Amino acid sequence: MMKASIATAVCLVAALCTPAQANDEDVKEYREHVMKSLNAQAAILGQIVSTAVPPDNLQAHLDSIALLASTALAAFEPKVPGGEAKPDVWAQWPDFSKRMREFADKTAAAAKLGHTASPEEALSNMLDVMDCKGCHEVYRNEKKGKKP
Amino acid sequence: MMKASIATAVCLVAALCTPAQANDEDVKEYREHVMKSLNAQAAILGQIVSTAVPPDNLQAHLDSIALLASTALAAFEPKVPGGEAKPDVWAQWPDFSKRMREFADKTAAAAKLGHTASPEEALSNMLDVMDCKGCHEVYRNEKKGKKP
Repeated sequence: MMKASIATAVCLVAALCTPAQANDEDVKEYREHVMKSLNAQAAILGQIVSTAVPPDNLQAHLDSIALLASTALAAFEPKVPGGEAKPDVWAQWPDFSKRMREFADKTAAAAKLGHTASPEEALSNMLDVMDCKGCHEVYRNEKKGKKP
Repeated sequence: MMKASIATAVCLVAALCTPAQANDEDVKEYREHVMKSLNAQAAILGQIVSTAVPPDNLQAHLDSIALLASTALAAFEPKVPGGEAKPDVWAQWPDFSKRMREFADKTAAAAKLGHTASPEEALSNMLDVMDCKGCHEVYRNEKKGKKP
């Protein structure tokens, strides 16, 4: 159902073909959206492991984490300190970017396991490779009193 | 890299095989996590359309929305009013569930378009079918002053 007008289509083409001039607030908002999605999906895995909610959509949540993780590094590439990101993200870029690439690769492998092996193996593997806390302790100033 | 201990593996099998006894707070938290992820990814599409951020990860964001949308209906199946969900979610379940199923189907089709056609077409189609506002106006009590 293509309801978009020609004007909308032209705008979209322009949006996708025009180099984006992201200002600092846009950059910070973008990475907050990415990390907020990831945190929410990670919290869901926690709920499933603790049997607080049923695992009905487990594979979709594993796949979501892998997809979102694949977008995370790019969200930090513009050197714009602020928000919850510590300045060390950029001061220690080789370490930070290596961790983020590993995070993307390993969560992708874990999610894939759910399609080829079993949900138990996939979930176990995902929990092994999602070292959120290890990275956050070094690179994140968490806002106090905030829910995931 | 399988570091999970046998004990962890046993716990996971137990978690996935034991019927979850979700209490009301768990149920509300689960659907909040799902909708928070969706809102954040929708906000990212808005940033891309307005050229606030570059469209580098557009396809991953489109795929994420489709995946997350596929989990949304189940999150509302337990009849637990509260949070931002209006009681009409359950009072008008045939309409609500129809909208949610269409949302899942149409976002899946839009995301798929990005793999077979062009990112412009996929994004245009996704924006056509993501009638967040239309559904929220009827079924959501939005907390004031909250960011997406």
